[in-house]
Amino acid sequence: MKRIKLIVAYDGTNYHGWQVQLGKATIEGELNKAISSLTKEDIKVIGASRTDAGVHALGNVAVFDTESQIPAEKFSYALNQRLPKDIVIQKSDEVSLNFHPRHCNCSKTYEYTILNRTFPLPEYRNTAYFYYGKLDIEKMRTAGRAFVGEHDFKGFCSAGAQVQTTIRIIYSLEVIKEGELIKIRVNGNGFLYNMVRIIAGTLIEVGRDRIAPDDIAGIISSCDRSKAGATAPAEGLKLMVIEY
Amino acid sequence: MKRIKLIVAYDGTNYHGWQVQLGKATIEGELNKAISSLTKEDIKVIGASRTDAGVHALGNVAVFDTESQIPAEKFSYALNQRLPKDIVIQKSDEVSLNFHPRHCNCSKTYEYTILNRTFPLPEYRNTAYFYYGKLDIEKMRTAGRAFVGEHDFKGFCSAGAQVQTTIRIIYSLEVIKEGELIKIRVNGNGFLYNMVRIIAGTLIEVGRDRIAPDDIAGIISSCDRSKAGATAPAEGLKLMVIEY
Repeated sequence: MKRIKLIVAYDGTNYHGWQVQLGKATIEGELNKAISSLTKEDIKVIGASRTDAGVHALGNVAVFDTESQIPAEKFSYALNQRLPKDIVIQKSDEVSLNFHPRHCNCSKTYEYTILNRTFPLPEYRNTAYFYYGKLDIEKMRTAGRAFVGEHDFKGFCSAGAQVQTTIRIIYSLEVIKEGELIKIRVNGNGFLYNMVRIIAGTLIEVGRDRIAPDDIAGIISSCDRSKAGATAPAEGLKLMVIEY
Repeated sequence: MKRIKLIVAYDGTNYHGWQVQLGKATIEGELNKAISSLTKEDIKVIGASRTDAGVHALGNVAVFDTESQIPAEKFSYALNQRLPKDIVIQKSDEVSLNFHPRHCNCSKTYEYTILNRTFPLPEYRNTAYFYYGKLDIEKMRTAGRAFVGEHDFKGFCSAGAQVQTTIRIIYSLEVIKEGELIKIRVNGNGFLYNMVRIIAGTLIEVGRDRIAPDDIAGIISSCDRSKAGATAPAEGLKLMVIEY
């Protein structure tokens, strides 16, 4: 038996998120179906990040165990033949049998993309949050720096997740302007439920001059969800890479 | 009565092209429906470029005449409320009653986008042509220069269009590399049916070393469709702007 690790890219628009749900199309469900059909085994992948409905990924990670004789690096090609076009395996390789995609020291990078112009653009309708008002990038950058470091992010977490601790480390947070796109790129050792989308929603409030950059540190330390901004919409969020 | 000019952006993936067809979703049909519903008139727009199924636009142009009292520049906002999310008016203004979007001296700019990497990316599945092999950009650039100027492009035209002449002027053709994307940007005074997609297909053959850059001039002057490359797939093509 060997353990195969997949790097999975997907457009989450047409899925009810990563996690298998009865009667609904999910990324995990499509992977299970494609791999099981290929290997003739009953495969259930284990994913690194159970992204929400509408959220995208360039580099989510899934593993599964198989007796198949298919060389590890060939799984990517074989599975892409069987997967829908909005899910594409970027890489497959063999990992040790004690590798677990969630129980490891790792860092994750997410990007939250905002399309900032007068009118929406059709091609970004599912992959960026459209916002037409003026956003002060410099203030967003200043505010972003307050998130870096080890903090209790209890106030930047939606209800519903069961976690042992709400303390997380953010290693970096950049606000990048690429033409009419604003990207909030954040790298950390883990993220609470909706944490990146609440950070994005809060930085949008800063850009709109509704929250001062200097107030971010206090909002974080208050651990009060109601002091942070709204949860920004799912379509702007993309899991970029997980580094083990 | 006044004539309104619209700049129309769309993702053509879910449409049977621009032109109205009975029982099929088209860009023109959606515009007619939205404008008629807004003005309570029976509006039929006239479009500048009748793009094919799957082809996109950032700046196609449509005009219509109306007795409506709505200020010209407000049509964009009002129509975007009524249009599906993959069609977005970028601008509306009043033009003179003798302005016709097709019977004018104008230049059009198209972009053909190729995603060139080992595996497809889900987010580009409908907006770029995926090609995994090596492409020699410098050779494509050299070949591209041979298209510039006034030529009889009869060999770069699919059957089916009725035109008075197959002579067109290409003002510029650039091959741009943006990371893993290769964009062929071409500006001219008009394009024959499938002309940009056949130019793109021919430049891809050059990039693959199947056609030499020095052979392009002879292929053009031969006026022989069978000497040029294949018609590249619709999803890579986007009408960028029409300048009057």
